[in-house]
Amino acid sequence: MAGKLDFYFDFSSPYGYIAACRIDDIAAKHGREVEWRPFMLGATFKLTGGKPLTEFPLKGDYSKHDFARSARLHGIPFRMPSRFPISTITAARAFYWLAEQDRGLARRFALAVYKAFFAEDRDVSDNAVLAEIASGLGIDAAAMLEGTQKPEIKEKLKQVTDEAIGKRGVFGSPFVFVGDEPFWGADRLEMVDQWLARGGW
Amino acid sequence: MAGKLDFYFDFSSPYGYIAACRIDDIAAKHGREVEWRPFMLGATFKLTGGKPLTEFPLKGDYSKHDFARSARLHGIPFRMPSRFPISTITAARAFYWLAEQDRGLARRFALAVYKAFFAEDRDVSDNAVLAEIASGLGIDAAAMLEGTQKPEIKEKLKQVTDEAIGKRGVFGSPFVFVGDEPFWGADRLEMVDQWLARGGW
Repeated sequence: MAGKLDFYFDFSSPYGYIAACRIDDIAAKHGREVEWRPFMLGATFKLTGGKPLTEFPLKGDYSKHDFARSARLHGIPFRMPSRFPISTITAARAFYWLAEQDRGLARRFALAVYKAFFAEDRDVSDNAVLAEIASGLGIDAAAMLEGTQKPEIKEKLKQVTDEAIGKRGVFGSPFVFVGDEPFWGADRLEMVDQWLARGGW
Repeated sequence: MAGKLDFYFDFSSPYGYIAACRIDDIAAKHGREVEWRPFMLGATFKLTGGKPLTEFPLKGDYSKHDFARSARLHGIPFRMPSRFPISTITAARAFYWLAEQDRGLARRFALAVYKAFFAEDRDVSDNAVLAEIASGLGIDAAAMLEGTQKPEIKEKLKQVTDEAIGKRGVFGSPFVFVGDEPFWGADRLEMVDQWLARGGW
């Protein structure tokens, strides 16, 4: 099997959610696996002067329309959260704590967090909500939340974020790499699919 | 035939160029025509705090890579202009002067301007270059350049731009409308194609 795809995303990114629902299937078509890498998108905003899409005049309204339209196209349940954006740092740390034990479980947790936020309008910045999601997957929620406070877990998320921005040029969510080839945006997944099929062009 | 698609673009937009090379064919597949509407993207930047993609840290390098990659995917010749961005207001005014006489000719002129800028690295902010392009299409170049200075032509471009931003929510280039349904970006043309095929979703 050729190398894994790298999938960078922030839990507060609607397009990250749409990509998360699709990326594994697209990779699997081509015999590839995906390394899921939540990171802190806010850190790129400091560098690029960006901010959440929804906060730009005109672009904000368009984006909300397009989130829902893109989700419908792919049969993905979507409802714009009533609280947006929110802090997702604890969810990202929980992912890395889980990933140390079971990468598949960490991915299922990530999908469940995304679904809770973007399909069920649950506030995933709230530890109680994260604990419920974890329990639903058979995870020891108390241990997980404790794990998110460990220095090495905090450092892991910081390191992934620094590397994404500093070494790989990531500036948005989702961001997918096929080898070193970068693809930004949920709307680039068709291109990722073609790139994998053709080996580039 | 159902209503025309509206295609808003700025002559200094690389993704506008890629869309311009494809939009008529996509519309024609579905028995549709396209109303080409060059506008002044810079006017949206004042409102949204935007600036040319290439001027953002990280995003700038990615964009240049993606311009070329997207063009190659669709077999469109592309070379990043050595001078970029440049003023394209005269080209846009020339378009509207031509369109008053012959909309097909105006579209051919638009494509020729785009190709000169993004495939041949010619400086289309230069009236002499615009005159050469016009002459190559059998257009009276002197009359065209004189036409770009007419108050009603200047007003027409301003009016299209104001309406695009104020009434239709346009904030980028390219921007396509199927009826009132907005699509931003050259990478939304596949979605435009599906929207036309399915009548929305």
